[in-house]
Amino acid sequence: MSTNHLEPTDRTRITRLPKRGDYDLATIHAILDEALVCTVAFAVDGQPFQIPTGFCRIGDKLYIHGSVGSHYMRQLAEQKLTACIGVTWLDGIVLARSAFHHSVNYRSVILFGQPTRVTADAEMYEALEVFTNKMCPGRWDDVRKPTPGEWKATMLLSFPITEASAKLRTGGPKDDEEDYDLNVWAGVLPLKLTASALIPDDRLKAGVPVPSYLR
Amino acid sequence: MSTNHLEPTDRTRITRLPKRGDYDLATIHAILDEALVCTVAFAVDGQPFQIPTGFCRIGDKLYIHGSVGSHYMRQLAEQKLTACIGVTWLDGIVLARSAFHHSVNYRSVILFGQPTRVTADAEMYEALEVFTNKMCPGRWDDVRKPTPGEWKATMLLSFPITEASAKLRTGGPKDDEEDYDLNVWAGVLPLKLTASALIPDDRLKAGVPVPSYLR
Repeated sequence: MSTNHLEPTDRTRITRLPKRGDYDLATIHAILDEALVCTVAFAVDGQPFQIPTGFCRIGDKLYIHGSVGSHYMRQLAEQKLTACIGVTWLDGIVLARSAFHHSVNYRSVILFGQPTRVTADAEMYEALEVFTNKMCPGRWDDVRKPTPGEWKATMLLSFPITEASAKLRTGGPKDDEEDYDLNVWAGVLPLKLTASALIPDDRLKAGVPVPSYLR
Repeated sequence: MSTNHLEPTDRTRITRLPKRGDYDLATIHAILDEALVCTVAFAVDGQPFQIPTGFCRIGDKLYIHGSVGSHYMRQLAEQKLTACIGVTWLDGIVLARSAFHHSVNYRSVILFGQPTRVTADAEMYEALEVFTNKMCPGRWDDVRKPTPGEWKATMLLSFPITEASAKLRTGGPKDDEEDYDLNVWAGVLPLKLTASALIPDDRLKAGVPVPSYLR
């Protein structure tokens, strides 16, 4: 295993449409860094569960956080449950000439690993700073930092990004040769998560301007 | 259990921030109908997996489809694995005055159930029509319909929408009372999945116009 490339395992090898698979760390990291939400799947006594949650990446670790009162966070941490974490980013609808060849363009990552509860102050601080700035670049320096009580109420878990794979589809439709002559419009409808106009809080203090990082 | 409301079970009851939970079928259906992709989580010998996939809803059934060669579809169908299906729709980033109270606005659904393989032609046809028109309203009537060989290559699974719950957050930040006087901008950055300009296929037949349903 080179440092830039993960070796596929039985759990991460792309068997369906394998040419869409990508095991390069640069690809995996880029998808993780752009996505705002991941899905954490796990099994308790054989019963599958999944929870959507925000996350961030620092180096080869993926971080999630939640309340120390969160049932699923405690299950993960106390039982060291193996999680399957997924991220899917929808980039467009692929409109083929036949119903059968319709598809979507996407970038996804799947990752398997066991959680480690992070308790070191420096690692917690860095992860929450990176997490906050991922949701809104520049935000951390502008807001009130956590109090000791808030730190204690927060559980942070890390997962190693060592058993993971990406799967991507890009480009236009792939139609059957005989369908290219049909009078059907074909192409891609690109999709993107976009921000619209800010909604100020009802109790926004008078005179507080919109910060430059949000303009 | 009324027909408009699902009774929470041990698997679907919202225990963390229960006031965000919603068991009304109208809410659950609306979230499912707007989302384009769901995540199917399942466990094989205690090992969790998850797969993102398109889906549609007809009445009280959720449908996914894939190739008859798809490993996970076959595992689900042949072993009648209980799946946990999730949908998450991100509506905005909630910018509070403290790092701790940052949040996101979202609408999510979680559903537990066992798959039934659909083999009746009429139900398959209807599901694939609804699926195609969900991705792109009006598309089905415009494209080449599946051939007998394509029908045979397609596996369709249905899940009952009978054990499910929704969880939602809307509105602005909820700050600690003493933080409202801070000189920090607070509010919501709304997010939405939006379409941009169509990309015609390189091999689009000359003279084929963009259909009205895509304009």
